[in-house]
Amino acid sequence: MRATILHEAGDVRVEDAPDPVIEQPTDAVVRTVRSCVCGSDLHPFHSLPAADGPTPMGHEFIGVVEELGSEVTGLNRGDLVVSPFAFADNTCEYCREGLHTSCPKGGWYGAGGIGGAQAEAVRVPQAQGTLVKLPTGVDSALLPSLLTLADVYGTGYHAAKQARVREGDTVTVIGDGAVGLLAVLSAKQLGAERIILMGRHKDRTDLGRFFGATDVIAERGEEGIAKLRDLTGGHGTRAVLEAVGHMPAYEMAVGVVRPGGVISRVGVPQYEDAPVGFGSLFGPNITLTGGPAPVRAYIDELLPAVLDGAVDPGRVFDRTVSLEEVPDGYRAMDRREALKVMIAF
Amino acid sequence: MRATILHEAGDVRVEDAPDPVIEQPTDAVVRTVRSCVCGSDLHPFHSLPAADGPTPMGHEFIGVVEELGSEVTGLNRGDLVVSPFAFADNTCEYCREGLHTSCPKGGWYGAGGIGGAQAEAVRVPQAQGTLVKLPTGVDSALLPSLLTLADVYGTGYHAAKQARVREGDTVTVIGDGAVGLLAVLSAKQLGAERIILMGRHKDRTDLGRFFGATDVIAERGEEGIAKLRDLTGGHGTRAVLEAVGHMPAYEMAVGVVRPGGVISRVGVPQYEDAPVGFGSLFGPNITLTGGPAPVRAYIDELLPAVLDGAVDPGRVFDRTVSLEEVPDGYRAMDRREALKVMIAF
Repeated sequence: MRATILHEAGDVRVEDAPDPVIEQPTDAVVRTVRSCVCGSDLHPFHSLPAADGPTPMGHEFIGVVEELGSEVTGLNRGDLVVSPFAFADNTCEYCREGLHTSCPKGGWYGAGGIGGAQAEAVRVPQAQGTLVKLPTGVDSALLPSLLTLADVYGTGYHAAKQARVREGDTVTVIGDGAVGLLAVLSAKQLGAERIILMGRHKDRTDLGRFFGATDVIAERGEEGIAKLRDLTGGHGTRAVLEAVGHMPAYEMAVGVVRPGGVISRVGVPQYEDAPVGFGSLFGPNITLTGGPAPVRAYIDELLPAVLDGAVDPGRVFDRTVSLEEVPDGYRAMDRREALKVMIAF
Repeated sequence: MRATILHEAGDVRVEDAPDPVIEQPTDAVVRTVRSCVCGSDLHPFHSLPAADGPTPMGHEFIGVVEELGSEVTGLNRGDLVVSPFAFADNTCEYCREGLHTSCPKGGWYGAGGIGGAQAEAVRVPQAQGTLVKLPTGVDSALLPSLLTLADVYGTGYHAAKQARVREGDTVTVIGDGAVGLLAVLSAKQLGAERIILMGRHKDRTDLGRFFGATDVIAERGEEGIAKLRDLTGGHGTRAVLEAVGHMPAYEMAVGVVRPGGVISRVGVPQYEDAPVGFGSLFGPNITLTGGPAPVRAYIDELLPAVLDGAVDPGRVFDRTVSLEEVPDGYRAMDRREALKVMIAF
């Protein structure tokens, strides 16, 4: 089959790879129908050392079940399914608590011998716990929105849930990528009354307004912080959803959060150490939360509004490419020419 | 009057100071009956640069109201009162939310022209919102326990509340100082079933067992982490209450917290940057919370069990000194010869 491989920073290729096969009785092999490029794929695209490559890419997909291991029940060949970006058994104590990303039998696509999803087919470990059957056809107009359930919608939702966004809240969202925009949608769904989106790409923040942002701040750094404080009577907001992962976004979050408030991070941190002492988090009793979203836990909750068209998270896809064009998709996202690139097979 | 002044690290003296007087109509002057030395006083005792001194010391006290500003109502001369370690108006939006340490009119004893409480008398700003009248006499045997409401009991309780300790929980408490031990008591009061106390001073951890600790781990660092993981089936505990403030305690907290769990810090951090990235907090969805405790918010909640003798937090005081002996009290606590030193006037 053909698959997307990152060799080192900047060098992403679509090349021949072995066809995935059932290796464990809990596996499935899924033929990809839709996949996409994630903002988090851009982090290794910027920085992967050649010594750490080559690595298979992609972790979001919808596909058709092609083969099933002997222990997988509840799924059939031919089922259209969506996969969360992390696989999990959905039965252990962590999964039962809704923390599928800490499942001891779980893991990530593109690591540990599991292929990536920017490929013609994918081996899915723990298939029974991981895959969710979709009640639509392979030609449904809902596929883009359904594909966001694999990661970016559930990740934005995780940010809002971990921040305990509630009816009437004022919320800041940092970042106008797909996750930030769907954090806006999620905050809106959870009842936030005022949603301040910090982002500087007008086409994206316009989509953020469509999803529910009431205010947009294009300024960054101290200027952005000052503007947000102006908008909130000097206080900042109780909930801050950080959907970027770079240190300036963390510093922005610390600058705009209200005393006693919550910074909820879902952008994968590109740093290990950060300020958490008296002058940043401790003095004003700020809570720092978040992590890789257990999106499997949210699919059941988010699916109905997608199916009935009440929400349209698939609007984050503004470009569609074929598998062979994926390297162009990376470059388009990297140059901010595309918000999020879908791959149609 | 006589007051305790820290000139620089290691140099604490009791010396003459001006008698406090009413400066604002919202002030009170309180004649000290009991005060004490706090574990957090040891931080500047170890590190205060001479250029930052001299600084008045002490922030926990019970006393008798001596003078009242013209705008203070609800208090009378002669009332026995306890003061939280931070003063606050108790009417602003932060105070109404129970976050008195972020009150815009609030502040700290021993800073900004406000004296310390290791002194014969104290000027109390925002007296009406700050002081809580006690229904006991100045010779009550309950004074030690009532004095803990000024800081260490409320601070331990804050750690447990911020970690959302609940019925049946398993909780780790890091630190066997007064705050750690009262975090044990607080976790017990909130229903924790298993409380693992990490501390290496047997007399203190014995008191911890009296307050409710079910297990004690004396080992530190990697050895302590391994022991705790052994005790918890490899998982760590959902709630970790960190009552020290030094980096090794933070690292220990990261090492023993269960995925999806909470590290609740109330030890004043002696660091600004700390690990919070994928390898520490983000990957396993750990929440970091805590800060200076809004103890004013907890006094009403904690007072009844102190008054009826259901709890005896005053057992953390194992030495009593006169005001003139306070420097000896600092040294005794610094050498771990005393757990917590009370000052009787």
